[in-house]
Amino acid sequence: MLASVPPMGWNSWDCYGASVNEETVRRNAEYMAKYLKPFGWEYVVVDIEWYQPTAATHEYIPFAALNMDEYGRLIPAENRFPSAAGGKGFGPLAEFVHSLGLKFGIHIMRGLPRMAAHQHLPIYGSRYTCSDAANPADVCAWNPDMYGLRADTPAAKAYYDRLFQLYAEWGVDFVKCDDIAREYPRCAREIELISEASRNCGREIVLSLSPGPAPLERAEHLKKYANMWRITDDFWDEWPLLLGMFERAEKWCIHSGPGHWPDADMLPVGALRQCYPDHPRGNWTQFTEAEQRTMMTLWCMMRSPLMIGGELTKNDPFTLSLLTNKELLEIEKNTAASRPLCRDEKSCVWCAYRQDGNRYVAAFNLSEESQTIRVSPESLEATPRTAKELWTGRQSMDSALEANLGPHDVALWAVEI
Amino acid sequence: MLASVPPMGWNSWDCYGASVNEETVRRNAEYMAKYLKPFGWEYVVVDIEWYQPTAATHEYIPFAALNMDEYGRLIPAENRFPSAAGGKGFGPLAEFVHSLGLKFGIHIMRGLPRMAAHQHLPIYGSRYTCSDAANPADVCAWNPDMYGLRADTPAAKAYYDRLFQLYAEWGVDFVKCDDIAREYPRCAREIELISEASRNCGREIVLSLSPGPAPLERAEHLKKYANMWRITDDFWDEWPLLLGMFERAEKWCIHSGPGHWPDADMLPVGALRQCYPDHPRGNWTQFTEAEQRTMMTLWCMMRSPLMIGGELTKNDPFTLSLLTNKELLEIEKNTAASRPLCRDEKSCVWCAYRQDGNRYVAAFNLSEESQTIRVSPESLEATPRTAKELWTGRQSMDSALEANLGPHDVALWAVEI
Amino acid sequence: MLASVPPMGWNSWDCYGASVNEETVRRNAEYMAKYLKPFGWEYVVVDIEWYQPTAATHEYIPFAALNMDEYGRLIPAENRFPSAAGGKGFGPLAEFVHSLGLKFGIHIMRGLPRMAAHQHLPIYGSRYTCSDAANPADVCAWNPDMYGLRADTPAAKAYYDRLFQLYAEWGVDFVKCDDIAREYPRCAREIELISEASRNCGREIVLSLSPGPAPLERAEHLKKYANMWRITDDFWDEWPLLLGMFERAEKWCIHSGPGHWPDADMLPVGALRQCYPDHPRGNWTQFTEAEQRTMMTLWCMMRSPLMIGGELTKNDPFTLSLLTNKELLEIEKNTAASRPLCRDEKSCVWCAYRQDGNRYVAAFNLSEESQTIRVSPESLEATPRTAKELWTGRQSMDSALEANLGPHDVALWAVEI
Amino acid sequence: MLASVPPMGWNSWDCYGASVNEETVRRNAEYMAKYLKPFGWEYVVVDIEWYQPTAATHEYIPFAALNMDEYGRLIPAENRFPSAAGGKGFGPLAEFVHSLGLKFGIHIMRGLPRMAAHQHLPIYGSRYTCSDAANPADVCAWNPDMYGLRADTPAAKAYYDRLFQLYAEWGVDFVKCDDIAREYPRCAREIELISEASRNCGREIVLSLSPGPAPLERAEHLKKYANMWRITDDFWDEWPLLLGMFERAEKWCIHSGPGHWPDADMLPVGALRQCYPDHPRGNWTQFTEAEQRTMMTLWCMMRSPLMIGGELTKNDPFTLSLLTNKELLEIEKNTAASRPLCRDEKSCVWCAYRQDGNRYVAAFNLSEESQTIRVSPESLEATPRTAKELWTGRQSMDSALEANLGPHDVALWAVEI
Repeated sequence: MLASVPPMGWNSWDCYGASVNEETVRRNAEYMAKYLKPFGWEYVVVDIEWYQPTAATHEYIPFAALNMDEYGRLIPAENRFPSAAGGKGFGPLAEFVHSLGLKFGIHIMRGLPRMAAHQHLPIYGSRYTCSDAANPADVCAWNPDMYGLRADTPAAKAYYDRLFQLYAEWGVDFVKCDDIAREYPRCAREIELISEASRNCGREIVLSLSPGPAPLERAEHLKKYANMWRITDDFWDEWPLLLGMFERAEKWCIHSGPGHWPDADMLPVGALRQCYPDHPRGNWTQFTEAEQRTMMTLWCMMRSPLMIGGELTKNDPFTLSLLTNKELLEIEKNTAASRPLCRDEKSCVWCAYRQDGNRYVAAFNLSEESQTIRVSPESLEATPRTAKELWTGRQSMDSALEANLGPHDVALWAVEI
Repeated sequence: MLASVPPMGWNSWDCYGASVNEETVRRNAEYMAKYLKPFGWEYVVVDIEWYQPTAATHEYIPFAALNMDEYGRLIPAENRFPSAAGGKGFGPLAEFVHSLGLKFGIHIMRGLPRMAAHQHLPIYGSRYTCSDAANPADVCAWNPDMYGLRADTPAAKAYYDRLFQLYAEWGVDFVKCDDIAREYPRCAREIELISEASRNCGREIVLSLSPGPAPLERAEHLKKYANMWRITDDFWDEWPLLLGMFERAEKWCIHSGPGHWPDADMLPVGALRQCYPDHPRGNWTQFTEAEQRTMMTLWCMMRSPLMIGGELTKNDPFTLSLLTNKELLEIEKNTAASRPLCRDEKSCVWCAYRQDGNRYVAAFNLSEESQTIRVSPESLEATPRTAKELWTGRQSMDSALEANLGPHDVALWAVEI
Repeated sequence: MLASVPPMGWNSWDCYGASVNEETVRRNAEYMAKYLKPFGWEYVVVDIEWYQPTAATHEYIPFAALNMDEYGRLIPAENRFPSAAGGKGFGPLAEFVHSLGLKFGIHIMRGLPRMAAHQHLPIYGSRYTCSDAANPADVCAWNPDMYGLRADTPAAKAYYDRLFQLYAEWGVDFVKCDDIAREYPRCAREIELISEASRNCGREIVLSLSPGPAPLERAEHLKKYANMWRITDDFWDEWPLLLGMFERAEKWCIHSGPGHWPDADMLPVGALRQCYPDHPRGNWTQFTEAEQRTMMTLWCMMRSPLMIGGELTKNDPFTLSLLTNKELLEIEKNTAASRPLCRDEKSCVWCAYRQDGNRYVAAFNLSEESQTIRVSPESLEATPRTAKELWTGRQSMDSALEANLGPHDVALWAVEI
Repeated sequence: MLASVPPMGWNSWDCYGASVNEETVRRNAEYMAKYLKPFGWEYVVVDIEWYQPTAATHEYIPFAALNMDEYGRLIPAENRFPSAAGGKGFGPLAEFVHSLGLKFGIHIMRGLPRMAAHQHLPIYGSRYTCSDAANPADVCAWNPDMYGLRADTPAAKAYYDRLFQLYAEWGVDFVKCDDIAREYPRCAREIELISEASRNCGREIVLSLSPGPAPLERAEHLKKYANMWRITDDFWDEWPLLLGMFERAEKWCIHSGPGHWPDADMLPVGALRQCYPDHPRGNWTQFTEAEQRTMMTLWCMMRSPLMIGGELTKNDPFTLSLLTNKELLEIEKNTAASRPLCRDEKSCVWCAYRQDGNRYVAAFNLSEESQTIRVSPESLEATPRTAKELWTGRQSMDSALEANLGPHDVALWAVEI
């Protein structure tokens, strides 16, 4: 089963925005293979506008010329991805990533390039043109590149089928499709088309939908047609966004399961915003260590996919330790039915279940002050026999789940019943 | 811990409306003690308007004279509850119920009797009058008896404290407070007052809030101040209402836990509407046997409180078997973290977890046609070693969870991993 | 035709709230007869709670005992209206007002007294009781006295018919019915019942509906069933309220006409809040003279009914002059089709039409600074031959409509074409 | 003053959609000069997509190549407008129309051609390009040609200024700007830019905004920046649309005045839909004669601009008579302050005022049955001395305004007071 556990990997957005290049991807893939692969990290994902030769930051340049083939399919900008020369697309880069024992992913925008429609380019292997498929009234609110498709036309189906066929030929294992997850109801049919194209392309491709928030009331549609989907707008290294994730995680947690994972977005850890020399928020995560523990714990408890946002080669020891906590990642892979037991303005407690009946319990301090949080046996409906805190490695003396926590910090116990 | 598992019992509403009397309560209590107590049923609850001498059906008579003491507290109508004569209130009836090894509950409306305010009756043990506590602008939309209280006044606190003191003296174990659970935000403070009065009255009293739907976004407030609360408007023996419960159960399931239980309302089984000779819907449940299995399974999987609505002494063998399925009631008492795995228009699958790591899996046919439903091992993230279907007692041959189900029917497996 | 021009008079609310008494009414009636009658002022209206013996200010005392006859009809509190002794009701007071050549009006609340329902009082001349007519779920949000009626019952019709019959016998010429004008859609039928009762009672009674804002989309229903209705919530001597009236006047102006008048509420001029010794807003209008001119001009241009709010006997010369500007009141009585020509944050221009084709033009300075406002002949679609400013009496030299206006002041020209 | 009375003319949309050509315009202009000019008709307006060489019906072809100059300004398709050859634009056609004593108008879409942005064309006389002015996220929902502009940029101002300069050079007297009137609040600033460009271009150009419904709460903004604006979506020959206009006319009527006219849209009379051989609604108006009288009467009473939608040269005698009723058109030109006196589901009465104090009164039968409608002297606040019905020419015998009207028909009286 595709995505039988939540996908884990690295994505270029948080550090390189629209400007990622081949060297960067290779460097991060090598790091992942060496330091992270043993812990389950495997996807290397090239985010937005790899087809735009002049992209330099997180911003999009209106009316920029995009690199595309004669059928209106976007192909890598060769000035940024030299191995794509000679019409090889991402084939060589995917091959390199595969050679490291990893998987290769790319970002796409829903739709087709505007100029492909205006130029009436043919759709490969069909009698249609891109102008037959494109909807001139459907443009993305935040990116100027594409027209959405008229999903009820055979031209649209032909375009997406041929697009995924090309990506399958390149060796793509993961597609993050953007401008779509929160566009219900108008894009529901387009999601289905893309899902079908991905399933019929002859290669196993994980389908990830962005941006959030996807609508909760369409959870079953998302579970059926996608492997993961964003539950928030872009997540960054700001406490209010992390705090807000507790409510969203609570609403979505029952929809996590093999093959379909609500996605809390990338982990903004380590070296971020590398494409900006003087970004006001700096080039390193603004999260405290406590906040990073809280984030990793919540993401694993809710079984969100984990996509690292920082430049891996600049990781410091803390960041690396955060990403390689084996017992923590066990929760991500081998629990079920996790959920909050209680939540208020100051604290929150989550519980997850293991196959063997044992549990993980996380107590979060959401407040600005230190506080002691105690989880009662009654609320667990069970009496812990032993309990080990996984961030400190400390064994609880008397099976009491109680911790004194600094602001925004967390305690996470593996509990034997 | 009060209500450490979901309360189970009988309530007079579905069969007697506002007209229940002492003989009926005694008769049903005796039946419960004899046939149901061994399975965990214990609460006997007298529903609305036990203080109204002329109530005869489910309807309320505007401006009827209510029976109350000199402090504006409602007391039983003696023509309906003879043992209350001489100012004994529900004391003797509670004592009788207790003598059977059961618990005694009553219904109240939020607020105080309108005439107690117009007559300026004193509040017992205070310097206030009922007119100090009552809010003349706060009346219930569907019942003419009471004024809501001005929750920010000491008079209101005094009234509720003295009211619960009286009930504690009578021996009441359970209070179903009505006209309140869906009245957020305006009644939030009144809920707190009532909760405090119930906790400080010197007797353990389960607090149940009606009617629904209580607002999901106030789940934490409800968990803190009540033991159970309605998640729908009144539930009756109609398939659309049962079908609708699947969505509500999905939204509320993560909030079920020791001491706080989302309540899917009474079970309209067996002999209903006994106070009507010629009710258009008849005097027996309109649910098919399949629908009753579906209802019982969903209620137990979501761990809703279970309150039988039918006249117990008229139970037929099927109804009695429904209420005494020991393995089913095990789910109600000894699982955790139950939730739907998937749901669409035609079917739904739920899974619940036992302390020992084993599971219960329910497959519901929501459609009007027979269909085969199969639950894949992947969706369980585990491979069943054995599986026994609990409504038929059939052992699955090859651990496959698959059933051919008639319309609105259910299969429920106890699964060993 | 009843109310063929907008009714003009005095109302006790702004100066005496719920506490007005007989002596006050007589004193103000005498003043009106002497000083105001020649200018068209004629109604003397006793506002709310004349049946409540202990009312002392603008506030209502919950659960106070109301004075009513054996049929549940409110009658004057004799301690406040001595002439009502012996069951004479307002008969003697009405007679006195009529003797002065004036007309007599009273305020009522929609519905019947709560105690009349609880006591099951009979409805005069019918086989119904007040509890048959009253709706126990329908109470006013801001006054504790009454229950609304179940308008679809013959009991409700009987109650209102007999109520107006009593008032007609007393000699009432004007009824201001409260808790009704903004209660669409639920009170639409009750408005019709009251309207029919007033038209069938054998006496011409102007029907005024309060409080506002009445809904604009029900304008035609209001025009059909009432003679005047409030277009705002209570209006007081505060500039923001006066400023806000310009938008409301604009929306309602086309609905002014013989028999049906949108009502901008009482004129808070002169001596106000007389029932409070130490009211924080004092006992005299807070409006500047300019603001009072603006108010009077707008009310007359939009042809709102004019009801003086101040204690008449304390009028100073300015106040009296304001109320006796004969040319201004000519607009109230003898124009048609008035409307704004333009309106922005700083200024507004209105125009009204006379039978002879001549016009009135008002230029309002809505800003906090002095400014010169000029009204172009083009916007009038006519070239003025002469123009006279009515607040100053000044004749325009060259027919130009131009004025230098202080903050919140107005120029008002009678224009000959 | 520009548009001191409501503009009257002909527009190509109702008969030719996006496909109008030069011959048609000349033919209709000649007809207008000969038959209609004496009655006040003067504008000849070329509607949408005169720059699209392949347009053939009311539909727009996505991604069609548009005819534009080197500065991204649309110019007439020469295959449709031969006189535009050699870069002369609409100059020769405007000259022809002027030679007939008429005025010339064109339609534009808000924004600039998409290809002008993608090709980065320069904006004439500025240092900007069309890609600096265009907003790639702002596309029209129903037409594929343009990008809206980023109104806060100097590039946008430069584009609109140079666009209107070109039109002024051609001799354009009237611009109908589309995709803008109902796009508040996001296009408010763009309306201002276009208004300024039109006022500063050196020629008097009436500015008309489409499509409706424009928002009533922005009436003052519209009055300030435009000469006319649509109050509904497209109006066609269907009774429900005509019926619906009564409510809109009521809401907007007070905002009619010299220079600013709420626009009820074109008059679909005579020969319509000429660009379709087999249109399901046919090639002649579906309105009955009664409905056409009702429409003309309402439009004139509310003083809407009048734009004939039919092919003029195919007018039959009735249609011509409808457009040349001199007394009716007198209302359009020489009244003020018109408004409804009453309106319900079955009938409506309007009244308009003449300079000399006399009036026009229209009684509309909105029902499907014949009925007699009588207008009382009280509702007019005047006693008619004489009254002449303008559609029949009949003099009222006794000054009573009363008419027996067939379904959807109207009586219209000129009344002397």
